[in-house]
Order: sequence, then C-alpha cells, then structure tokens
Amino acid sequence: MKYRLMAPGPTPIPEEVLTEMAKPIKHHRTPWFEGIVKDVQAGLKWLFQTQNDIIVLASSGSGAMEASIINVCQKDDRILVVNGGKFGERFGKIAKGHGISAELIDVEWGQAVDVNIIKEKLAQNDYRAVCVQASETSTGVGHPIQEIAKLTKDLPGTALIVDGITALGVIDLPVDKWGIDFLIGGSQKALMLPPGLACLSVSEKAWKLIEQSNTPKFYFNLQAERKAVHQNTTAWTPTVSLFVGLKKVLELMQAEGLQEMFTRHQQLADGIRKAALASELKLLAPDAPSNAVTAIYSPDGIDSGKIVKRLRDDFNMTIANGQDHLKGKIFRIGHLGYYDLFDMITVWSAVEKTLADLGHSLQLGQGVAAIMNQL
Amino acid sequence: MKYRLMAPGPTPIPEEVLTEMAKPIKHHRTPWFEGIVKDVQAGLKWLFQTQNDIIVLASSGSGAMEASIINVCQKDDRILVVNGGKFGERFGKIAKGHGISAELIDVEWGQAVDVNIIKEKLAQNDYRAVCVQASETSTGVGHPIQEIAKLTKDLPGTALIVDGITALGVIDLPVDKWGIDFLIGGSQKALMLPPGLACLSVSEKAWKLIEQSNTPKFYFNLQAERKAVHQNTTAWTPTVSLFVGLKKVLELMQAEGLQEMFTRHQQLADGIRKAALASELKLLAPDAPSNAVTAIYSPDGIDSGKIVKRLRDDFNMTIANGQDHLKGKIFRIGHLGYYDLFDMITVWSAVEKTLADLGHSLQLGQGVAAIMNQL
Repeated sequence: MKYRLMAPGPTPIPEEVLTEMAKPIKHHRTPWFEGIVKDVQAGLKWLFQTQNDIIVLASSGSGAMEASIINVCQKDDRILVVNGGKFGERFGKIAKGHGISAELIDVEWGQAVDVNIIKEKLAQNDYRAVCVQASETSTGVGHPIQEIAKLTKDLPGTALIVDGITALGVIDLPVDKWGIDFLIGGSQKALMLPPGLACLSVSEKAWKLIEQSNTPKFYFNLQAERKAVHQNTTAWTPTVSLFVGLKKVLELMQAEGLQEMFTRHQQLADGIRKAALASELKLLAPDAPSNAVTAIYSPDGIDSGKIVKRLRDDFNMTIANGQDHLKGKIFRIGHLGYYDLFDMITVWSAVEKTLADLGHSLQLGQGVAAIMNQL
Repeated sequence: MKYRLMAPGPTPIPEEVLTEMAKPIKHHRTPWFEGIVKDVQAGLKWLFQTQNDIIVLASSGSGAMEASIINVCQKDDRILVVNGGKFGERFGKIAKGHGISAELIDVEWGQAVDVNIIKEKLAQNDYRAVCVQASETSTGVGHPIQEIAKLTKDLPGTALIVDGITALGVIDLPVDKWGIDFLIGGSQKALMLPPGLACLSVSEKAWKLIEQSNTPKFYFNLQAERKAVHQNTTAWTPTVSLFVGLKKVLELMQAEGLQEMFTRHQQLADGIRKAALASELKLLAPDAPSNAVTAIYSPDGIDSGKIVKRLRDDFNMTIANGQDHLKGKIFRIGHLGYYDLFDMITVWSAVEKTLADLGHSLQLGQGVAAIMNQL
C-alpha cells in the first residue's frame, strides 16, 4: 500500500510543491530570496485576511505560541488560557516555563469554551492575553473566536492570541475584521508543507504591547523579525526550501480561492462526520466541530489504538489516537490541507473495513456511501 | 478535486520519481550518464527476466513496435498479426507503411486469439514474425503468450514480437524462459514514468535475423543501439530525465519484488472486476482478462462516453472510453503501475456515483464494498 497521511498534520504535500522544493536551494542573503519573502508576505496577508505584518519563524507552531506569549507579556503579567485539550494545556505550560502567571479555564475535552466565562474573567481581572485554539487538534473542537475577539478588541492592554495551527486556511478567521491580535499557523497543516515553519500575524495593538515587553528572549524576538520583514528578509537563517514551497502553496491557494478553500474543508468534514454516523459511531465534538479534524469514539469494547495500529500496519495509513484520558477511546482523522472527498472515501474505507474486522456491527460500504452521496 | 489518472496510461508517477526527475539534468555524453545506462540496463534485464540486451529508445511504444518489425524483416517478408483490437491493428498498419505483407488473424474484440489458428498458419506458410499483444489495451484482453511462444521458439526464421506495453511489470512474461524474441515496454504504463521512452528486449535469435535485414531504416536501427548499449550509451540523444526516472523506478520495483508486483496487479484487477459485477455490470473480456486494464460494458441506455465525461468534468478523473465500434459501449479503467486497492476504491466510488446519477439501478456502496472486502 502507498503511504497515506490522514492525521491532523503532517499532511500530504502537492506534487507541484514537492518538485518546487526539490530544486537546488540558493543563499538567503540575496535578491532572489528577498523576492521570495516579498511574495510570501503578500500571499500570507491575503491568507490571514490582514494588513498586519506576518512573521515567519524557523520553528514549529509551538515556537510561535511561545513567541506570542513572551513578546506580548511583561514579567509580572497574568494571562487567561482556554484549557480544553492538549494544545490549550500547552499555552499554560509555556507561561509556566517563563514564570508568567496563567489562569486556566478548564473546558471538558470535546466541548467549546463558554464565552460568558471569559467575559466574567475579563471583567474581574487584568490579563495581558487571552489564549485560545481556533481548532483544538486533540479534540476536533472549534472555539468561538469571533465572540471572544469581541471581548478583547476594545481592551488596549489585552491581546487575543489565537492558535490557528490547524485552522489557518481551513476555517474563516478574518484577522482584521474580527480583531485577532496574534494568529498562529504551522507549515505541516493546511499550508501543505513539511514541518519546520511557523507564521503569525501580529496586530498594531499587539506591537504596542510588544514594545513594552521586558521578558527574556532572543531567537523569538518578534521586533527583530519585524525589522527584517520590512527589509524582505528574516532575522535568523530561514528555512529556505520551506519558504520556496510556501510561495508555491500560496499560489495554489489563491488559484483555489479563500472561500472555496473553506467550503471544501466544510465538505470534507461533513463527509467524515456523515460516514461516522452512518457507520454507527459517535462523534466527540458534535456541537462545536472544527473542520480541520474529526474525533470519533471507538465502539464499545474496541480500543481505538487497535484501529490506529491496523490502519498503520495493514493499510500504511496514519490516523491519530486520542491523547491523555481519551487515548484508546477516540481516533482522529485529519482533513485539513491537500485533500478532496475521494481521500475521505479512502480513509473511511480503511476505517470501515477495520471496524468490521474488529467485530463492530455495520454493513460494509454504508459509511463510504454517505461520502459518495456528497460527491 | 485533485487530478487522477485512472486510464490505461499515462499512469501516476511516484513522488520519489518526480522529485528525482526534477533535479537538474546533466549532459548525456558523460561518465555520469554512462553509469545510469549501466544501472538501467541491469534493472531492465531483471524486469524483463532475460540476459538479452535491452534497447531503450527515445520514442513512444509505437516506435518500438515499428523498430521490431523493420529490424527483423527483409523487404519481401510476410508477418502474422493477431488483430483483436486497436493495437493489434497497429502492427498491421506498421507493416503496410513499410510495404511488408501482413496477414491478419481477426479476433473478436474482447476475445483472446485461438492458438490453434496460429499453429495452422505457421504450418502452412513462412512468416518472419508473429506479432501479438500480451495485453490488448483497447479491450483489456490478455493473449496466451506462453502458448504462442511454444510455437515460434523452435522456428529459427520466425521471431515472436510481443507488445508488452501495458503488460510489462504487470503480467509475468519471462522472456528467456518462454523464448520471447521481442518484448516491448513503454514508459507511461507500469513503468510509472511520463511518456517518451520505450524499451525492448531482443533475443539472440532475433539479432541473427536483424543482421540479414535489408529494410530502409535510420533512427530505429537496433544494431546501432545495441553497439551503443555495449558502450553504456545510446545511439541518439536519449530522454535523459526519463532515464534518470527509470533508474529510480527500477529501484522501487526491485524493492517491491517481481512476483509481489504481479500479485498486486492481480489484486487490483480482481478488485475492479468484482466491483463491476457487484454494481450489476458486465465485463467485455471475462474469459481472458489482462490485469493491466479492465473494459466494462456501460449499462443499457447509457452511453459510456457520458460516464467518462462525468468523471472528467465533475471528478477530475481520467478513465477511457471504448475505441472504434466499442466507443460509447464500454469504458476502460487502468490499474497498471503506481496503484493500490485504495485507488481502486477511489475510481469505483466515482463510477458508482456516476452510474447512480445516470439512472443505473444499484445500491450505492455495493461495488466499493466488493473492493473493501479484498483489503
């Protein structure tokens, strides 16, 4: 069997991008690379729907999460963190690693945060930032970013930091319109690139806060990066091949169109959800699903790890298990990036066959037919 | 939708091969290219299961068909051609183009040739060559090469020319064991490359006949190519990037294994045939199917061109219509080369959905389930 990535990242890379990145790379302190930075900057502004400068880092998405917090905060600041999954948790750990006080709003995994709780917290205390996932990869939940942005928009001392790592290019997140201060993306998600590059948009409000920041930092100094971007370069050595790939990816995305991209992801997510229901399975997050990834409960008596393992060993396909207390209980299918409905049919045919072989009662082909009906 | 090639050639190219071919090319009159020719020659001998020299031409497969005939024949020779499809017909046209007399054994499209007829013909007349398709791409028929080779093997003046363009790497055709004098392959088939390169093995018996040939030729002079191969080069400018790709393809094939490759193609062909039957359709060649391509009758009242067009326009997928008198009556699905069972599920889900939309009575998912059962 061919190898197939069906996890919520890394995701498949289009051949046009692979071959672009296979070309010999040139030096990055050259007019050639400056041209690429300029094109990428314009493309990212389009993708982020913003006039903000977009900072591109040679790091994974977690690096950009850390960069956002340590650049916007001062030493004794307090931040508010929506803690409804593995990646919400990570915001808290980053703060802890830097001695920044983080107040966690614990949300049951599979649920979206209640905006009223954030509202109350903001009324009671000063927070330098509100940190939240647009798409919580560990649960497949989409948090209500637009509603949260309404709360932070008019607070000059509070930045909204949105982890859009699995949301960017998947879910409509108009940065300027909604007033998102930081929106973070990662290359190995809907950006259809290998891992190693992160990007984040930073609002004017955020830059003002960054100027006052006194936390220790060097590699992730966003002001140094902003200065570099204005000179069409990067502060430190950039991931040249990923930049080259990103330029190509943005061309492909623009050819598809922004709304068309969101609609396609909606269809992919609908396909997997309908297939799961048609195969007599339950969704972890039926009420607040993210269109990037769907978490599905394994049938009673079947450890979800068995499904993941069978797909890996017999079908050469990677999907994801649950994490922490959901390990063994759910499995997660990624549908963000370079996918179409036929890819959903492919992964579901593997899941359905596996479930049947493991003794789950279903009529083979019924789940797949639910996706075929959407074709 | 992503573009998907599901026709009997060109076929998809593995990413490992695409990226290999994307590297800058070097000059072909160099030790670098001589090394590639040497490696390719060794790999092709393994693939063809022969000690013969393999000639690689910068041409399509039709060029290699022509090269075989004009190199083995003398001006007044007569050849015997199995004429059971578009490509059998082509052997006859090549002979006609060169003023060589071709006797056609007409075989109903969808049937394999009756070996007894060839036996009788060979007893009655002298033929310089017997020309036959191992896999007749227009009908999805596999002709009985082993049986035919038994008839020609001991005739020193008669060469067996086998068009293996869609058979090489798909069907077991042991050149030396069976005594196939010419076996012809084309790059854009199971060789998983872009079009533009043909290869053919030539037996010692054939080389003796070639030495006596007096037909007009220049570009397709196989003796010149043989001399070049012995010097690890080609007579004329080779398709350098395809050679580079071919070296990589042969590595991938050797990693899979020859018998494993034949078994995989058997499974792919079985999958499509079972899906077709489960979707209440009839096969054109149920009795002598080639594992490279399957021809399927369109249901009564549905022009097969509509199916092909719908897959192209709505699903961005290429399958093939019938040719000549079968146009509109059958459609053909290629399953040779870089495919696995999930690709068969993909193409069949598109076909099944299309048939349902066009009014063919079936239960959606039933055909696909027939393939899933094979997983």
